[in-house]
Amino acid sequence: MPNKAQLLLLDKHAVAALLQPEAVLAAVREAFVLHSQRLGRVFPLVREALPAGGVFGIKSGDVATQNLLGFKAAGFWPANRQLGADAHQATIVLIDPATGRPQCIIDGNAITTMRTAAAGALGLMLLARADSRRVCVFGTGVQARAQVTYALDVLPSLTQVTYVTARGTPDPAFETLFAARCQVALATDCNAAVAACDVVITATPGGGPLFDAAAVSPGTHLNCVGADTQGKRELPAGLLSRSRLFVDDHVQAQQVGETQWLQDMPCTELGDLLDGTHFQRTQSDITVFDMTGLALQDLTVARMLQQRAMATGAGCSMAWPW
Amino acid sequence: MPNKAQLLLLDKHAVAALLQPEAVLAAVREAFVLHSQRLGRVFPLVREALPAGGVFGIKSGDVATQNLLGFKAAGFWPANRQLGADAHQATIVLIDPATGRPQCIIDGNAITTMRTAAAGALGLMLLARADSRRVCVFGTGVQARAQVTYALDVLPSLTQVTYVTARGTPDPAFETLFAARCQVALATDCNAAVAACDVVITATPGGGPLFDAAAVSPGTHLNCVGADTQGKRELPAGLLSRSRLFVDDHVQAQQVGETQWLQDMPCTELGDLLDGTHFQRTQSDITVFDMTGLALQDLTVARMLQQRAMATGAGCSMAWPW
Repeated sequence: MPNKAQLLLLDKHAVAALLQPEAVLAAVREAFVLHSQRLGRVFPLVREALPAGGVFGIKSGDVATQNLLGFKAAGFWPANRQLGADAHQATIVLIDPATGRPQCIIDGNAITTMRTAAAGALGLMLLARADSRRVCVFGTGVQARAQVTYALDVLPSLTQVTYVTARGTPDPAFETLFAARCQVALATDCNAAVAACDVVITATPGGGPLFDAAAVSPGTHLNCVGADTQGKRELPAGLLSRSRLFVDDHVQAQQVGETQWLQDMPCTELGDLLDGTHFQRTQSDITVFDMTGLALQDLTVARMLQQRAMATGAGCSMAWPW
Repeated sequence: MPNKAQLLLLDKHAVAALLQPEAVLAAVREAFVLHSQRLGRVFPLVREALPAGGVFGIKSGDVATQNLLGFKAAGFWPANRQLGADAHQATIVLIDPATGRPQCIIDGNAITTMRTAAAGALGLMLLARADSRRVCVFGTGVQARAQVTYALDVLPSLTQVTYVTARGTPDPAFETLFAARCQVALATDCNAAVAACDVVITATPGGGPLFDAAAVSPGTHLNCVGADTQGKRELPAGLLSRSRLFVDDHVQAQQVGETQWLQDMPCTELGDLLDGTHFQRTQSDITVFDMTGLALQDLTVARMLQQRAMATGAGCSMAWPW
């Protein structure tokens, strides 16, 4: 019925109302399984520097078995900060793979944040010690907050959040956010904070090693978010080689993740652990999850939002005739 | 003012109301000039076969000097024909290059048709003999009709349209479309039709040579639309080598246009004729314009439509807050 076709629009408010952490986690888990099974495809990346500054790119892909085709047009516009807006901007479009008609246009900013943090949550569930009590987080920005929020959800044993800021100064807003759920304290000594924690989350711009390799205690799990471009890193040299290394995608991790600094290091794709590969950590293993971001995460989360919106009447559905 | 941001949506009806041939021709002319000056960039192409049949792709680019950034997500879905719908489907998105926010979502189907035909019109204006009276068109589909419509506009001396169909049967709807403006007649002998015409337009699926090289008379201009993929052709062997060859883009023409069949043939980009390169045909030159389609054509036409819609209140403008 071409003439009755509809286009669903989900702006930031609609997305905020629909974006539930548990459902995002389930969608991201599905993306990792699809990736492990190679049922989800990722098309060649478009990524271009913009003459006026910033970067623009398009990540596209499909999952034939799920009737899913789409892309995220996104990038980084540093001048947005002067407007009080997010430098990262993303728009997601779902296309009907049977007809080529656009189905859904979605503000992708919050999706990017939460799908990244949900991948971190998967890393914690699959790799961190179940009795982990203390988490140390580097950074207090949007992604650091999202990672800690998930960490408190998926590791109920956590009772203490230690955080590190770039300038060593407290972040009262960050503390307030988690004060009701656990103890929150600023760390003044990065190495001591890492040594005392069971879980370390690095969510900084990736400008260099954040602590010493020797500071990491046996049994620690590290979620590494900040290294997503050539030249970026947060981990010190000498740490990966004494860790069990997990990545979201082999190729991306070696190109742009922490793994770029030790490319011949054996690693396992996290999705494989959800699809039959057995891994049981010892109490003394150091585990590292090097996250670079799967395009499929955007698509599975976008599709979940589309389905929720259609079921609840959320968003704006308009005629979009053929 | 991030919170006051708007997203403009132009569906097929809005596009149809706004898409005026003269304005499209001006925008396409601008695209050719920008391409000649290399002020417009085209980013790497995404083009993927779909498991269920058909092709999906994304053409993106920008023009820094004009504050223009965007892309066309498009492809070919043959099963649409069973729904009575166009197998070609396209959606164009304009992005604010200063902020990364989406500005405009446009049904791209009619734009694709008309921007292609407008490039043909430029070819006629720049290359065909000004006294051309007879045009022979191969094909009577959407693109053939659009090409002939422009041809009658830009070459007022045309008085006769001869058309060739795949099966040699008449197309009454095609005849009706142009009957008020000129003589229209079905050709039964392709070579005789070509020999008798001043302008030849090939707008078929590109399944092979449509006529013999010897049939082409001195002084003829040929607009070639159908060869846009490796392996496609409409011209016979032996014709390019005795022609003056013009292309929209060197690289694309050699990869997917008629020029793929004679890659070392010297050629001139049509945009250069709009930007200082002198060319004056002789009465006996055979000229060929090999069209493969510039991504910039989509962007300049989309931007023209965006500006017209904003000036007239056409389309649907909705809040799209940051």
